[in-house]
Amino acid sequence: MSIDATHDPGLRSWVDSANTGETDFPIQNLPFGIFVDASGRGRIGVAIGEYVLDVAAAIETEALLLQGDLACALSAESLNSFMSLGAASWRDARTAISDLLREEAPRQDRLLRRMAETTMLLPASIGDYTDFYASRHHATNVGRMFRPDGDPLLPNWLHLPVGYHGRASSIVVSGTDIKRPHGQLKPDDGPPVYAPCRLLDYELEFGAFIGSANAMGSPVGIGQAMDHIFGLVILNDWSARDIQKWEYQPLGPFNAKNFASTISPWVVTMQALAPYRSNGPARQADDPALLDYLTPATGSSDAIDVIAEVHLSSAVMREAGTAAMRLSRGTLADLSWSFSQMLAHHTSTGCPMNAGDLIGSGTVSGPEKTARGCMLELSWRGTEPIDLPDGTQRRFLQDGDELTISAFCERDGATRIGFGGCSGVILPAG
Amino acid sequence: MSIDATHDPGLRSWVDSANTGETDFPIQNLPFGIFVDASGRGRIGVAIGEYVLDVAAAIETEALLLQGDLACALSAESLNSFMSLGAASWRDARTAISDLLREEAPRQDRLLRRMAETTMLLPASIGDYTDFYASRHHATNVGRMFRPDGDPLLPNWLHLPVGYHGRASSIVVSGTDIKRPHGQLKPDDGPPVYAPCRLLDYELEFGAFIGSANAMGSPVGIGQAMDHIFGLVILNDWSARDIQKWEYQPLGPFNAKNFASTISPWVVTMQALAPYRSNGPARQADDPALLDYLTPATGSSDAIDVIAEVHLSSAVMREAGTAAMRLSRGTLADLSWSFSQMLAHHTSTGCPMNAGDLIGSGTVSGPEKTARGCMLELSWRGTEPIDLPDGTQRRFLQDGDELTISAFCERDGATRIGFGGCSGVILPAG
Repeated sequence: MSIDATHDPGLRSWVDSANTGETDFPIQNLPFGIFVDASGRGRIGVAIGEYVLDVAAAIETEALLLQGDLACALSAESLNSFMSLGAASWRDARTAISDLLREEAPRQDRLLRRMAETTMLLPASIGDYTDFYASRHHATNVGRMFRPDGDPLLPNWLHLPVGYHGRASSIVVSGTDIKRPHGQLKPDDGPPVYAPCRLLDYELEFGAFIGSANAMGSPVGIGQAMDHIFGLVILNDWSARDIQKWEYQPLGPFNAKNFASTISPWVVTMQALAPYRSNGPARQADDPALLDYLTPATGSSDAIDVIAEVHLSSAVMREAGTAAMRLSRGTLADLSWSFSQMLAHHTSTGCPMNAGDLIGSGTVSGPEKTARGCMLELSWRGTEPIDLPDGTQRRFLQDGDELTISAFCERDGATRIGFGGCSGVILPAG
Repeated sequence: MSIDATHDPGLRSWVDSANTGETDFPIQNLPFGIFVDASGRGRIGVAIGEYVLDVAAAIETEALLLQGDLACALSAESLNSFMSLGAASWRDARTAISDLLREEAPRQDRLLRRMAETTMLLPASIGDYTDFYASRHHATNVGRMFRPDGDPLLPNWLHLPVGYHGRASSIVVSGTDIKRPHGQLKPDDGPPVYAPCRLLDYELEFGAFIGSANAMGSPVGIGQAMDHIFGLVILNDWSARDIQKWEYQPLGPFNAKNFASTISPWVVTMQALAPYRSNGPARQADDPALLDYLTPATGSSDAIDVIAEVHLSSAVMREAGTAAMRLSRGTLADLSWSFSQMLAHHTSTGCPMNAGDLIGSGTVSGPEKTARGCMLELSWRGTEPIDLPDGTQRRFLQDGDELTISAFCERDGATRIGFGGCSGVILPAG
């Protein structure tokens, strides 16, 4: 992914709200998503300022001069076909859409819908969902809490990106209410019970949508991995810590995670993120050497500088008009393992990935306390409760709480771009 | 699922090869699968003796008088739509197909294709795949090997069916070659390496295809769980034991399992299995009481008596015309947790299941040594190698080995039905 004319900070759009310098969706971003059209069906849109560009309508009216497979894929009800076409097609579409929206081009207001009045769906049909555990700070914090007498990082952690398969069917789009799950819990002082989860948590993550597939039996090399990724979304991997604690040995988290995961509706493409690539944290002096299949080429800059903020508002706060409280602020570039390394490891066995598959980063936590990416860490397993403006405290999430993750990229010489929000309100257990 | 006229042992078919008493596919079975038609597309078939009934052709020609949603679903390219229609529709289709094929009905040979000349595909598009760990004998054996100083069963095992999410994209149909995966391995005496798996194993399992969906947030009660299951297939969950050993802490098996899982092409319906229901093994006197959400109604007989046999033949044996060697013989009824309990637990959080989702039982091992369901147990972690007729020994699978699982149900007063085979040949690492 290279920086080209579509990233020029001088570019402006005939959509005025895209030119404020504060919007998540300037013309340098152009993320893709699926909106509900008048007939109730999904349709591909691109976010621009406060509007959504109806891509299929732009193709039909020849405002966008795209043809063949690309035109067909962009007229579909999900992004899967478009994702499957590969990086050259993604670039062609981006360039054409940028040209359509730039200030010098004729206004085409009939192709726009107000975002505030638009319902979004999942961007793709997600075949398989995998979640990793790529933040050293998160893994270390969890290790300290749950294995206080041992080394906080398990022996494999520095050698490979630890991951596990997740549940695709319960991934929902931002704005979907989250019902507190029931589950089997084991109180310290008695036998297990089946009851509503008491230790409900969120996890600040990012998700990478796979675009280009690999055939079964054919690993994706570390040098090619970035070209297989279409783009990123914010991911909130809701977690039931009490279910998890009782169930997770020896096969890993299962019911603790499968009731819901929320993603933001707009997929920010790797092309849009090209100006924000970085090297990620250096490996420490006594860290083991990486095996070749996980070693990026020198200067490949596979990390991405995305800043994420988490806000919480209780039902009482929202009723009182109190602003949501910021819980944390972290950055994706703090991950010790990049999405390229995750994908290279995931496919190193020959595991086939398909367009629309989603790879989660795992909880993004930073070295500072203010950069911890879940309640488990923020409240240190409930021992350090958080004071809310409504006078209550939080160890874990309560019914009525709304959790919102936002994210953006900022760098000198580039235009700020954002991800929009990823939010959900906790409903009582049914 | 009840026993009705379609199970009558006196029923015979005008397809002579269905009446031998030895075929897997008598008229009392009628399993569904997807075959490749002349145009290369998938089409629904029903196995009968040595033939495949072309169901869509039977509907088109009005040999099968089915209409509306059911006719439409049975004319599709996969079984997902048919699976989603629910138990009443499955019964209607079974009755109509049984009537079409019974001896008294007119011969309709033009609706048949020889099975030996037919290529099969996966029966459904598998959205999510979950694997359980429901055999007490398997879990105990593995516990003994890997935690020799502790209790072989972990504390949660007797309280809930332990499971984890698997990889759907690498599930293949019987007959697909399996390339030995590469992976990160950790020799006991040195740093990790990236190399071909050295401890390649199979796991004898059964898979349950979900038919009726449940909405997100709505658990499936234990009393309704059986009605949500469309049918069973044989499942071979190929496993890379050396990858597994190094990677699985703390989030469970991942790359050790995601390179391939093989299923048999014919889905034997729960209706066909109705005569073979049983109570499963009794819980032991000192086992804890089950929580209500996992307690089946008295007399519900949620276990199923299916006998499975595993055979191995090396490349040398096949060249020499030596018969495959039987490695083990076990029964699904030995599982301590039924598919009803697995489904009730899986959805107890509100996790949504969709038509075509697959639930694996976990390795089916019995109390005897001859009923161990994988090489890890059979060779006791490689310490008790198995002698093959070609003069070689096996601790784990070698390149060229063909592993075949077959399965059948037999009971006095009922007709023997079978699953066909589930096989794969190991190819060298690429």
